[in-house]
Amino acid sequence: MQNIQDYITKNKERFINELIELLKMPSVSADSAYNQDVLNTADAVKESLEKAGCDFVELCETPGYPIVYGEKIIDPKLPTVLVYGHYDVQPADPINLWDSPPFEPVIKTTKNHPQGAIFARGACDDKGQMYMHVKALEYMTSTGNLPCNVKFMIEGEEEVGSESLSWFVPRNIEKLANDVILISDTGMIANDIPSITTGLRGLSYVEVEVTGPNRDLHSGLYGGAVANPINILTKMIASLHDENNHITIPGFYDKVEDLSLEERAEMAKAPFSLEKYQDALDIQSVYGEKGYTTNERNAIRPTLDVNGIWGGYTGEGAKTVIASKAYAKISMRLVPNQDWKEITNLFKNHFESIAPSAVSVKVTPHHGGQGYVTPIDNVGYQAASKAYEATFGKTPIPQRSGGSIPIVALFEEHLKSKIILMGFGLDSDAIHSPNEHFGVFNYLKGIETIPLFYKHFTELKTQ
Amino acid sequence: MQNIQDYITKNKERFINELIELLKMPSVSADSAYNQDVLNTADAVKESLEKAGCDFVELCETPGYPIVYGEKIIDPKLPTVLVYGHYDVQPADPINLWDSPPFEPVIKTTKNHPQGAIFARGACDDKGQMYMHVKALEYMTSTGNLPCNVKFMIEGEEEVGSESLSWFVPRNIEKLANDVILISDTGMIANDIPSITTGLRGLSYVEVEVTGPNRDLHSGLYGGAVANPINILTKMIASLHDENNHITIPGFYDKVEDLSLEERAEMAKAPFSLEKYQDALDIQSVYGEKGYTTNERNAIRPTLDVNGIWGGYTGEGAKTVIASKAYAKISMRLVPNQDWKEITNLFKNHFESIAPSAVSVKVTPHHGGQGYVTPIDNVGYQAASKAYEATFGKTPIPQRSGGSIPIVALFEEHLKSKIILMGFGLDSDAIHSPNEHFGVFNYLKGIETIPLFYKHFTELKTQ
Repeated sequence: MQNIQDYITKNKERFINELIELLKMPSVSADSAYNQDVLNTADAVKESLEKAGCDFVELCETPGYPIVYGEKIIDPKLPTVLVYGHYDVQPADPINLWDSPPFEPVIKTTKNHPQGAIFARGACDDKGQMYMHVKALEYMTSTGNLPCNVKFMIEGEEEVGSESLSWFVPRNIEKLANDVILISDTGMIANDIPSITTGLRGLSYVEVEVTGPNRDLHSGLYGGAVANPINILTKMIASLHDENNHITIPGFYDKVEDLSLEERAEMAKAPFSLEKYQDALDIQSVYGEKGYTTNERNAIRPTLDVNGIWGGYTGEGAKTVIASKAYAKISMRLVPNQDWKEITNLFKNHFESIAPSAVSVKVTPHHGGQGYVTPIDNVGYQAASKAYEATFGKTPIPQRSGGSIPIVALFEEHLKSKIILMGFGLDSDAIHSPNEHFGVFNYLKGIETIPLFYKHFTELKTQ
Repeated sequence: MQNIQDYITKNKERFINELIELLKMPSVSADSAYNQDVLNTADAVKESLEKAGCDFVELCETPGYPIVYGEKIIDPKLPTVLVYGHYDVQPADPINLWDSPPFEPVIKTTKNHPQGAIFARGACDDKGQMYMHVKALEYMTSTGNLPCNVKFMIEGEEEVGSESLSWFVPRNIEKLANDVILISDTGMIANDIPSITTGLRGLSYVEVEVTGPNRDLHSGLYGGAVANPINILTKMIASLHDENNHITIPGFYDKVEDLSLEERAEMAKAPFSLEKYQDALDIQSVYGEKGYTTNERNAIRPTLDVNGIWGGYTGEGAKTVIASKAYAKISMRLVPNQDWKEITNLFKNHFESIAPSAVSVKVTPHHGGQGYVTPIDNVGYQAASKAYEATFGKTPIPQRSGGSIPIVALFEEHLKSKIILMGFGLDSDAIHSPNEHFGVFNYLKGIETIPLFYKHFTELKTQ
């Protein structure tokens, strides 16, 4: 497909500049202060789909942020690809750790991106990866290379649990009817080691609040005599892992799928250097569940991490206070077969049960989602594999990811089609972290690879 | 001394209004943003001492905030009382828990203060209690009732460890020479149960930082495989107490004075209702070291409390991040014979030793001070006891306090005199907490009692 390479060469600057404009919009869905920015971003995505050749584009109202829907139906008898992505981004804090402002994109080279990478919140997750699909569509419609029907469904609440999309999908089954769902919101092993994500972990995200005395107390007058909510919270959280780093919540592992030794041996073939991994993170050693390797720990095993903790005096200097309340945000990554609602309940019941009577505890579930596994023998996976082979010159490696896209299991449930996760980001792209970036090579390689997926998928499907 | 009661009745409104003006000044020593306010407060205290009748007042420069020094020497052959207090205050946050702004004083009645209390940061700790001494001096000088010499030493760093005062005192031993040191920076049992504090706990205050990976990470991609600094911090802090709530730091209890059963039985005679204590704090049960009562736990036993903890995402909504760093502020209250510097070292060594190799740990000592015990058979204590007897109609109860005034042990070391802790606050006055207040009854009762201390002390000393 020489055509697409020429097209990219000719339009490269514009593709990058258009993405940069999109990245300037601070569409932080978790923080209501950015409400108008999120809405403006939806408008911008809508406009980009219109320009890229969709016949019909609309903002679908939901209880939360709108879903941008677009379509180009060329022949109802041909297969339909549904593209999913999101236009919202993670909060940018801690802002002070960014080398350049999170919403003022700049291009810099890095060790993994010698051709340059665009630095901005959302560059990789997911504006950059979502926009690859818009530009691939532009190429296919403007050059007469679109081989099938296409639908877009771009949401604005992925980073806060996709609640509105969960509401929208079951109400729009006919509108969203498709033969395969295509998502670029994951990563690949390296720029010279293409891979396709075949598994995602589920997620349960909760917030906990421990209350002791009804007001902050002087730690001299009350210290030692009254339960200190922060001390208690640390004790409660610490008790959630045992000495082997197994999670202690009763029933937590009951439905966890045990991979066979053969499957684990197969996984272990993926290229991995523990030394490089530790060097990249500046750590002396890894840390995790006994009996599993690093790649198993972050892919096929469930986890429990504190994502935030706060309480008492956190300003400059010293304050001798016993806080009335202490808080933590805790998330559990789940593996296929673990039901996130069931796990959330197990957590809540257990956490409440271990609180001493001297404090009270509130557990508030935030959001969650099921894990997912894509079988590699289906047509969608095969079409994707062929597309990567053509553009990277190598067969991509099927790989389980530790991340979660909670909505994916819901897609399969309601829309009855398989989900193909063609991710072009790298683990080192710092998504959810300061200095998030997305390689220019990856961005353009995505735009080049996506049309080939359409081609192979249509061919395999209509054989 | 009918005179003083008349004088108070006549000047009551002015006494309250002058204190209110002082409380409007946000002299937060822990936060450099208030630097100018702290300095302005020193000026205001200097002026108030001049007006109250001191012959000589000056701001003594130090490496930090100035010390307000004032004196009225009526006869070098008469005894000298040195009054110590502080003009700085604790930070006011969490601001949102205040019912009225912390630096806009208002008078409201409470259950314990039916005659009204002044609500403001510093009302009780220590501006209100310090200012009682200024007004008592005014009464004595203006009515010819000052029976001895008096010196004032009012500092601006008590809430952050009195570092400058520790520098100042050994350099000014002659200037500060005295026969007794009088301090009102503690409390009493109740408005109808006067008490005098005879013991203070020492303090060691440290900040800890746990560092894992060199940047914030996506909890999906890395969760379970890398040490999460917050999880590790909770485990490390939790391990500092065993199942009986004994502190596990090796050597921590080595020098702790064990009180005899007789002494403990004597302490247990102080009026105390566990039910009322729990009700006042809205707690179902107390919590502390096994084998000790509530009043023992917060007076004669050392403690370890987390005063603040933070790390990761603490904003609205959810962020699935593994933080690079987690922090806590931890203070230990110490009992007499425990050396705060030694304890700080024990903590540092132990905390560093329990860190897993997957993280690095930094322990930064903030400040500290030794504990103190006043013998009740000395002249100063007896003079104070007689003063309370006259104004409250009851012999005050000697009581150990759980709080710390780290500088007190240093006073005795350098100035070789006893320290008398005439505190007029109540435990319920919420010092260091939102809605700090000081009873109008207590403020005026302090002004009434202090001149009697001078009278009895001079009489006992010159007998």
